[in-house]
Amino acid sequence: MTATRQIHLVRRPKGMPVLEDFALVEADVAEPSEGEIEVAALIMSVDPYMRPRLDADQPLDQPLLGGGIGRVVRSRNPKFQEGDIVRHGAGFRERFVSDGRGVSVLKRDPDLPLTVYMHALGGTGLTAYGGLLEIGALKDGEQVFISTAAGAVGSVAAQIAKIKGCYVVGSTGSDDKVRWLKDEVGLDAVINYKAEPIAEALKAATPNGIDVYFENVGGAHLDAALPRMNVRGRIPVCGMISTYNGGGEGVRNLFSMIYGRLRMEGFVASDFPHLNAAFQADMTEWLKSGRIKYQETVLEGFERAPEGLIGLFEGRNIGKMLIHIAD
Amino acid sequence: MTATRQIHLVRRPKGMPVLEDFALVEADVAEPSEGEIEVAALIMSVDPYMRPRLDADQPLDQPLLGGGIGRVVRSRNPKFQEGDIVRHGAGFRERFVSDGRGVSVLKRDPDLPLTVYMHALGGTGLTAYGGLLEIGALKDGEQVFISTAAGAVGSVAAQIAKIKGCYVVGSTGSDDKVRWLKDEVGLDAVINYKAEPIAEALKAATPNGIDVYFENVGGAHLDAALPRMNVRGRIPVCGMISTYNGGGEGVRNLFSMIYGRLRMEGFVASDFPHLNAAFQADMTEWLKSGRIKYQETVLEGFERAPEGLIGLFEGRNIGKMLIHIAD
Repeated sequence: MTATRQIHLVRRPKGMPVLEDFALVEADVAEPSEGEIEVAALIMSVDPYMRPRLDADQPLDQPLLGGGIGRVVRSRNPKFQEGDIVRHGAGFRERFVSDGRGVSVLKRDPDLPLTVYMHALGGTGLTAYGGLLEIGALKDGEQVFISTAAGAVGSVAAQIAKIKGCYVVGSTGSDDKVRWLKDEVGLDAVINYKAEPIAEALKAATPNGIDVYFENVGGAHLDAALPRMNVRGRIPVCGMISTYNGGGEGVRNLFSMIYGRLRMEGFVASDFPHLNAAFQADMTEWLKSGRIKYQETVLEGFERAPEGLIGLFEGRNIGKMLIHIAD
Repeated sequence: MTATRQIHLVRRPKGMPVLEDFALVEADVAEPSEGEIEVAALIMSVDPYMRPRLDADQPLDQPLLGGGIGRVVRSRNPKFQEGDIVRHGAGFRERFVSDGRGVSVLKRDPDLPLTVYMHALGGTGLTAYGGLLEIGALKDGEQVFISTAAGAVGSVAAQIAKIKGCYVVGSTGSDDKVRWLKDEVGLDAVINYKAEPIAEALKAATPNGIDVYFENVGGAHLDAALPRMNVRGRIPVCGMISTYNGGGEGVRNLFSMIYGRLRMEGFVASDFPHLNAAFQADMTEWLKSGRIKYQETVLEGFERAPEGLIGLFEGRNIGKMLIHIAD
């Protein structure tokens, strides 16, 4: 038996989650049986999609659901060797024993840092890639609007659109993020939606309308985008972060969908296994050649996962929010 | 020169249109030149899609845009003979001269009344057919919800879904319409949304969820339907009548689209020319065999068109609203 720590959800958040909704809990890890492995967590991912789960499928007094990267420290399963770096969806547990289901060995490119496998080369990147290219059916040179363009998914989507020769407008919530998107990422226009009304700013920034709106926010962002959409425009719906904590305004401009023949469609990263090989190849090349840039906010220490999750909803992250546990 | 009458829009409606927004205007009709025809109006159609036009593309002090059926009374165009019954989109004019563009000879089935070519066998029917089968990608036996199911488009869509073996729930706004939909049309469940809260009623009426929501209303109807949608459900957006007159609530449940992988898509009747031959054949058969039932509200007299349009938004019609001018 080894002692470990877990992050539990101990009560359902009312609106914005607070630290008291979570607890750091000591637990024992059983010895791995035949066919099992023991994994030590290295990095955990904190993501917007975790918020709606807290209201529903996340069990109370159980480890917070989520994914990360770990190292196999003991193996009684022939598919894994001690020292293997693995991806897993085993939740917020410092150590865990697994029969190997949902755990896969990471084929790491030695020229890339491990953290990128938690965002640009992970589910985050695949979400952007599949959402934009398959659900959004992006064509080279189109007019694109990306909300939360400095966020983990948004920043990858924005840069894929730039690689595809598109005119790309992004929205974000701070002047620092505006600068990064303009100066480093090279977007064509960037809106600070906290500093100017999104509808007017978006109108000014999209003189040729919008063919694809990559939707991460909902509410006022969607209402601003709908009247700007070109005929047969697509709105891949990746997230609606403005609605997750019970706030946000209702959407009033959906009638634009009728004459615009707009298509709005929801998706999640797990919809794209058929794209994964092409995605890994494209994204590895883009990262190594510097065509995809990224930012990370890494909190040091397993126990800071709740702080990371809350910070995500308060916009305190720059780029992908990660929890670093060990090297 | 012949004298004629026209219905003009004389000012933009503020919210619900009122009679004073329109005027009955006397005008002259020129003699048809070589290549032209003169048409006398028989029936005019009044449709929900006319409302948003009043705010934008409908010119002031010009005949109200719209479509109808007329009779060719003089022809100097070899494609038309005097006495031909024609469809046209020439607007609310008792008589007009045309070079024949946008006018087509109606091949009428002698066993069907002329009025059905203005709804079940016209753009109304094609809207329901294309919206449900192509945009909604309806499969036999699915779970279907139709809003304003007693309306012109809704009642056709509901009956096509029944012909396809689906479980069909409809919403409507009066007990008379509920009775017609239950007793005559044979829907599986009918909700009077003015008598009971739509969200609770829809939940009770859809124990197996909804695969296709044929959207005519928006607002609270859409918010009620979204959480009931099955994974990979489709929402063909035909209309959003609750929003046309500036009223209605914002939509708050769009985040359901993400995990549900829902697809919402707008369309108009003119998107389906490729379906027209199949539609005409299917619908003629369904009407003649009595599998598609319909109701009509026919106002007698050209001058009553504004009353008909306003009545449509006040729900005073039962089934398709028509203006009868002459036989």
